[in-house]
Amino acid sequence: MSYSFGKNYKITVFGQSHSKEIGVVIDGIKTGYQINYDLIEKNLDRRRPGKNKYSTTRKELDSFKIVSGEVDGITCGAPLCAVIENKDQKSKDYEELRDKPRPSHADYPAYIKYNGHNDIRGGGQFSGRMTAPMVIAGSIAEDILSDKNIKIYSRIKSIGKVKDLDIDYEKIDLEELQNLKNEDFPVLNKSVKEEMQKEILKAKENLDSVGGIVEIAVLNMPAGIGEPLFNSVESNIASAIFSIPGVKGIEFGSGFSSAEMLGSINNDAYYMDGETVKTKTNNHGGIIGGLSTSMPIVFRVAVKPTPSIAKVQDTVSLKNKTDEKLEIHGRHDPSIVPRAAVALEMITAVSILDLVMEGER
Amino acid sequence: MSYSFGKNYKITVFGQSHSKEIGVVIDGIKTGYQINYDLIEKNLDRRRPGKNKYSTTRKELDSFKIVSGEVDGITCGAPLCAVIENKDQKSKDYEELRDKPRPSHADYPAYIKYNGHNDIRGGGQFSGRMTAPMVIAGSIAEDILSDKNIKIYSRIKSIGKVKDLDIDYEKIDLEELQNLKNEDFPVLNKSVKEEMQKEILKAKENLDSVGGIVEIAVLNMPAGIGEPLFNSVESNIASAIFSIPGVKGIEFGSGFSSAEMLGSINNDAYYMDGETVKTKTNNHGGIIGGLSTSMPIVFRVAVKPTPSIAKVQDTVSLKNKTDEKLEIHGRHDPSIVPRAAVALEMITAVSILDLVMEGER
Amino acid sequence: MSYSFGKNYKITVFGQSHSKEIGVVIDGIKTGYQINYDLIEKNLDRRRPGKNKYSTTRKELDSFKIVSGEVDGITCGAPLCAVIENKDQKSKDYEELRDKPRPSHADYPAYIKYNGHNDIRGGGQFSGRMTAPMVIAGSIAEDILSDKNIKIYSRIKSIGKVKDLDIDYEKIDLEELQNLKNEDFPVLNKSVKEEMQKEILKAKENLDSVGGIVEIAVLNMPAGIGEPLFNSVESNIASAIFSIPGVKGIEFGSGFSSAEMLGSINNDAYYMDGETVKTKTNNHGGIIGGLSTSMPIVFRVAVKPTPSIAKVQDTVSLKNKTDEKLEIHGRHDPSIVPRAAVALEMITAVSILDLVMEGER
Amino acid sequence: MSYSFGKNYKITVFGQSHSKEIGVVIDGIKTGYQINYDLIEKNLDRRRPGKNKYSTTRKELDSFKIVSGEVDGITCGAPLCAVIENKDQKSKDYEELRDKPRPSHADYPAYIKYNGHNDIRGGGQFSGRMTAPMVIAGSIAEDILSDKNIKIYSRIKSIGKVKDLDIDYEKIDLEELQNLKNEDFPVLNKSVKEEMQKEILKAKENLDSVGGIVEIAVLNMPAGIGEPLFNSVESNIASAIFSIPGVKGIEFGSGFSSAEMLGSINNDAYYMDGETVKTKTNNHGGIIGGLSTSMPIVFRVAVKPTPSIAKVQDTVSLKNKTDEKLEIHGRHDPSIVPRAAVALEMITAVSILDLVMEGER
Repeated sequence: MSYSFGKNYKITVFGQSHSKEIGVVIDGIKTGYQINYDLIEKNLDRRRPGKNKYSTTRKELDSFKIVSGEVDGITCGAPLCAVIENKDQKSKDYEELRDKPRPSHADYPAYIKYNGHNDIRGGGQFSGRMTAPMVIAGSIAEDILSDKNIKIYSRIKSIGKVKDLDIDYEKIDLEELQNLKNEDFPVLNKSVKEEMQKEILKAKENLDSVGGIVEIAVLNMPAGIGEPLFNSVESNIASAIFSIPGVKGIEFGSGFSSAEMLGSINNDAYYMDGETVKTKTNNHGGIIGGLSTSMPIVFRVAVKPTPSIAKVQDTVSLKNKTDEKLEIHGRHDPSIVPRAAVALEMITAVSILDLVMEGER
Repeated sequence: MSYSFGKNYKITVFGQSHSKEIGVVIDGIKTGYQINYDLIEKNLDRRRPGKNKYSTTRKELDSFKIVSGEVDGITCGAPLCAVIENKDQKSKDYEELRDKPRPSHADYPAYIKYNGHNDIRGGGQFSGRMTAPMVIAGSIAEDILSDKNIKIYSRIKSIGKVKDLDIDYEKIDLEELQNLKNEDFPVLNKSVKEEMQKEILKAKENLDSVGGIVEIAVLNMPAGIGEPLFNSVESNIASAIFSIPGVKGIEFGSGFSSAEMLGSINNDAYYMDGETVKTKTNNHGGIIGGLSTSMPIVFRVAVKPTPSIAKVQDTVSLKNKTDEKLEIHGRHDPSIVPRAAVALEMITAVSILDLVMEGER
Repeated sequence: MSYSFGKNYKITVFGQSHSKEIGVVIDGIKTGYQINYDLIEKNLDRRRPGKNKYSTTRKELDSFKIVSGEVDGITCGAPLCAVIENKDQKSKDYEELRDKPRPSHADYPAYIKYNGHNDIRGGGQFSGRMTAPMVIAGSIAEDILSDKNIKIYSRIKSIGKVKDLDIDYEKIDLEELQNLKNEDFPVLNKSVKEEMQKEILKAKENLDSVGGIVEIAVLNMPAGIGEPLFNSVESNIASAIFSIPGVKGIEFGSGFSSAEMLGSINNDAYYMDGETVKTKTNNHGGIIGGLSTSMPIVFRVAVKPTPSIAKVQDTVSLKNKTDEKLEIHGRHDPSIVPRAAVALEMITAVSILDLVMEGER
Repeated sequence: MSYSFGKNYKITVFGQSHSKEIGVVIDGIKTGYQINYDLIEKNLDRRRPGKNKYSTTRKELDSFKIVSGEVDGITCGAPLCAVIENKDQKSKDYEELRDKPRPSHADYPAYIKYNGHNDIRGGGQFSGRMTAPMVIAGSIAEDILSDKNIKIYSRIKSIGKVKDLDIDYEKIDLEELQNLKNEDFPVLNKSVKEEMQKEILKAKENLDSVGGIVEIAVLNMPAGIGEPLFNSVESNIASAIFSIPGVKGIEFGSGFSSAEMLGSINNDAYYMDGETVKTKTNNHGGIIGGLSTSMPIVFRVAVKPTPSIAKVQDTVSLKNKTDEKLEIHGRHDPSIVPRAAVALEMITAVSILDLVMEGER
C-alpha cells in the first residue's frame, strides 16, 4: 500500500505514466474551503516539462479537473478527486526495455516485484509524471497553510559543484523568497544561476545529465508540532520526500556538517526576542526531539542526475541472461533538479499540513 | 500517535527515562519462533552506557523480562511485551530545566507541546534511553532476518573530521563485518579508530562533545521489496532512522555526492554474475524507484554532537522571559555516536523485517 | 477519514450523488490478474435502480471505466481507479431540504458536521449511489475469491413480516444459490417471494416503504482466518456492513436467538467428516473467537424501510427553529432491501478478500 | 495486527490468560489529565469473577499498576502502560484440550491459525480475561468523556427468555441509570432481576449455561460525530463490540425490528424542544447516515451462553482424526452476561472517546 500518505490530510495517488488518467483523492480537507484553482494551475505549470532548454522538450498538458468533493468550488466534506488525462501518449515499443533494464531506473526491480506485469510504458507508476497529482494535493495544502501564515519555499541550492549562497531565513527579504515561485529556475544569486544553467547545458551536449541539491524552508511553523520517536517532524517529512523519484538524501539544519562539529558550536543558544523564544543560530533546522521549535524548518535534498542519458550504457538481457548494450532514445531532462524542486516543495506542503492538523487536534 | 512503527512487524514503545518501566509491545512475530534471549542481551549490552571512557560513566542495568507472547520461550501468536525496569533513578531537581530549556534538547518544544506537563526527569520520552526497548524489538527482527540470510551491519564512519575507509560490501570479508558487532567502538581501520577515540577524549576534556556519521549496510536483501512512491524502502528506513534522537541526515548509496555527479558516472551499469543480475557500482545503494535491487543496501546517518555539554550556555527563563545562563551537570556521553550506531542498526532491522514481510505477502 | 476500507485489499471511495464522477481506487490487487469486466457489469446491473416496480423508476446508467492500474485488462501493480460518470442529474431545488431535514435521512447531522457546506443534492456522500463504486471493488474481490473457491451469496430473508425458509448451507444445492445471483429479487421459496413483492407494492400504494432482512453466506472459507480481539472476522465484516446506508443490525450464526439459548443447545459439537473437522450444527456461523472455522460464514443484516416516503412528515426549520411539515417528492424505492442485498454481498466480498489476504501472509 | 484499536485514543492490548502479565498501552490521552484510579478499581471490580453464585467461583485479583505515561498521577504525554500480574495460575494439564477442541471455544481455529503454537492455558489470548486491560482503558475513557458530560450506561436486557423493561432514555431518571453501575447484576426491574437470576441458577444446576442481551446507552453525545461510509459511528462501535468474546450480534435503535416496520412508523419525526432539534421517537438509536444526532445512542448486544459447560460433549481428536467425548472441568460462569456487560460498556467508552476526539479535530 504505497499510494497513500498522511493521517489527517490523506492523499491517495493513482495512475501510471501512460494510463488513461492519473489523479489523486484527498480526504481530510476542511469543509467550506474555496479551492484555489489558479494556484493549482500555477504549480502544475512550474512542474511542467518542455518550457525551456534546461528541461526536456517533451510537452505535457496537465489540464486537470476536479470530479468530486466540491460544490461550486467550495469543499463539501466528501473526498476531493482530481484527475489529469494522459493524452497523446505514443504507443512506441517498450518491449526492449522490459528485457534490457535501464541503469538506475526502476525497470529491473519492478520486473522482479511485479513478475513482469508492470506497465513499462513511460516508466509506469515509477514515472516522474506521478508527481503531477501530488502537485495538485500540495497546492491545496499550500493554500490552506497560507491561511495560517505558514509558508513553504524551495530553491536550487546546487547543480553539480556550483552552489548558491547560504540563506539566513530569519533575515532574508520575504519578497525575494516569494519571487522564487515565479521562476523556472529558482536560484537566489543571478550569476550562480547562469553558471548552473551552463553546467546543465554542458551535460546535455555531452549526452549526459547532472544532479543537484534542493533546499526547502518552512516559515512560521508554530512550536510544539510533531511527536517524539516514530512520528517526528523529520520522519514525516523524510518519508514524504523520499517518495519523489531521484532523491538520494535529506539533511535538516546543519545536517551532515553537524557530524563534524563540536557540541558547543552546533548547539543553538536560546534568547528572548521580545516575548518570543528564539535561537541565535539554526543548526537544529527548526526541529528538536522531533518537534518544531518555531524557528524556520530548513532541509536540503540530494537529487541524483537524470538516469536517462543518451550515451550507450551497459545492461543485461533478463531473458537471455547475457550482457548487453543499451541506447536510450527520446527527450529527457538533462537535469531533473528544477522540476523536482516543485514536486519537493509540494509534497512538503502535504506533509506539513498533515503535521499541523495533527497538532491542532 | 508516535510510539508505534511498522505495518507487519508492528512495535509500540512505551515509557519515559524515569518512569517505573519502559518497554515495547511487538505484534506480528511469527508463531513458533524461539526467542534468542542471548542476542537481545548482547545488543542491549552493546547499547549500554558506562562501559568505557568514550561514553558516559552513568550505569544502566537493562535487564529485561518478557511478560507475554510466549510459552517456554516460543512465540505463541499473542503480542510479545518486553519490559525493562527503571531502577535507582535519582530524583534530583529537574525544575530548573523546566524553566531554562537546554539548548538543542527537546525541553522547549516539549514544554509548548505538553503545556508544561511533560516528564522532565532524564528527558522523559525524548531520552536516548527510549532506544533500549527498540533494541529488544530490533534484536528479534535481526534474528528472524538472519534465518532468511539477511544481515545488517553498522559501523562508525566518522567522528568529527576523522573518517574510516570506504567499504565495498560486495567484496569485504563478512567475518570482518560480523566482528564489528563484538566491538564497543566499531571501526574498520584500527589506526583510524584510535584517532577517533582521541577526538572524543579531546572534546570531553574541553567540556565539549563531538558528532559523527554511522554507516549501515543490509546484505542479501532480495530484489523487488518495497513500493514506488510513499512506502519506498528509503521512506520506510528514513522514517525509522529519524526516530533515533540526534539524527540530522540520511543518504543512500552515493547520496549527497550524487548531486555533484554526472549521470554517466552515477548510473550503475548492469552485468550478469553467472545467473545473477548485478551492478558494477552501487551508487544506488541497493534501492531504485523505492525497490530493493538485491545489491547491498547502504546508507549513512549524520549524528549530531551530544547536546548536553558541561560548558556554560545561553538560554532563557520561560517563566520570566529573560535571557539566562545554564550549566548542565551530570555525566553525559562526549559522543553518542558509538551507542547510537547500535540503536540505528536495531531500528533498521525493524524496518527491514517489516518491508520483507510486506514483500512476502 | 471514512472513505477507505481494508488493509490488504484497500479501497478508497470518492464522489457524491451529483458530483461529476463517483469512483473507487483499489490498492492491493495482485498483479497479472485479468479484470472480469462482465462480472462488474453484471453486479452493477443487479444493483441498478429502475428495473421493476419493486424499486424506484429512476434510471441510473452506471457505465464505468477503469482509468488506471491495468494494461490491456491485466492488472499491473499500480492502483486501479474505476469511475462512473454522473450524467443527467437534475439540478432541482434542494435548498428546502437544507433547511428542513428529512426524517431518518442524514440531512440534519450532516448539516451540523459540515457547517452547512455538505452537498445536499441527491443526498451527497450519504447517497445509496455511493455503493455503486463499492460494487466495482466487490466484483473484483468476488472474482479473485472465486479463484480460491470462496463463494459469497446473498438473499432476501424477509420483507416486513414475510420470511423465507432457513437454509442449511452445508446441504443446499449450490446451483440454486448461484441462481439467486441472476435474480432481481433473490428469494429461495417462490411463493414467499410473491408474498414479499405484494408487501412492497402494498407499502408503495400507501405512500409508504418497508424494511427487511438480508442473509449473506460465505462458503469454503479456510479455517484460522481472522484475529482475536480487535480484528476479528466479525469486527471486520460488521465494520464493512455498517458502511451500507440503511443497515440497523447484524447477527452471526444463531445471533440474537443465541441469547435465549442454553449452552448445551448453542454449542456446536465437532465431528470428523472423513479427514475434515466439522460441526454438527452451525450456531457459531463459521466464526469462533474471531477466527473462521471452515464452516459456512452466515450472517443476517437488518435493513430499515426506505426513509424517503411520500406521506407528509413532521420536521423542523433549522433556520427558523420552528416545527414544520415536509412532503418528499420524487421517485424512491418502496423497499431498498433487494438492491441493498447486492451492495451487502459486494462489500462482504471486499471484507473477506482483505481477511483472506491477511491470513495468507 | 488485532491487538490495537482506535485512531485518536489508541489502545494496544497484550498478554494471554496465563502469561506473566496482561496489560494495555494507551496512546493519545490528553496531557495534564489526573488519572482516576478509583474508577479503574471500581470497574475492574465490577468485571471481576468470583463475587457471587451467578458467576464463576474462580477468583482473580486484578490489582493493576501504571508503569508509564504519568508523573504523580498526572498524564505527561508519553503512552500510558498499565499492567496486571497473573498470579497463582495453576499449571494444570491443558494438553488434552489442544488435541480435543472444546465446542464453541476458539481451540480448533486457533490450532489451525497458529500451527499448534498458541498458548492453550486458560484460553490464551482468546480468554475473557483479556477484557481486564480493556476495562482499564475504558475507565480512563469513561472519565474523560464524563468531563464532556457524555455518559455511558449498560444493563442486562435479557437472560434467556426473561426480558427487562424497555427504557426511554430521554425520560428515565439518570440517578437510576447511574445506580446500575453499583450493581453486580444491573437490571432495572427488581422482580425481573430475580427471575433472571433464577434462570442462571437453573442452568447452573443442569450443568448448563445461558445467554442474554446487554443494552448500552450513550447520553449527551453531540450531533455530527462520525463519518459516512466506512468510519460510521455504527462501524466503529460494532468493530469494538465484536472484540469482546461471546458476542453474536448487535443492533442499533429499532434494529432488527425495523426490518418488520413501515417507513412511516420507523421514521423519527423531528421537533423543536426549545432551541434544540430532537426526534419524537428514537428508532434511529442516535445515529443516522453514520453520524450522531445528539439523541441517545442505544444499541443491544447478543451474548451467547458460556461455551464451557460441565455436560459431556462431542468433539474430535485432532491427532487421531477420530470422534471423541469431552468433559470440561473447572469453574465457569453459568452466564457471562453480567460480566460481559461491564466489558461491553468499557469498550464502548473507548470507541466513543475515539470518535469524539476525531470529531473535535
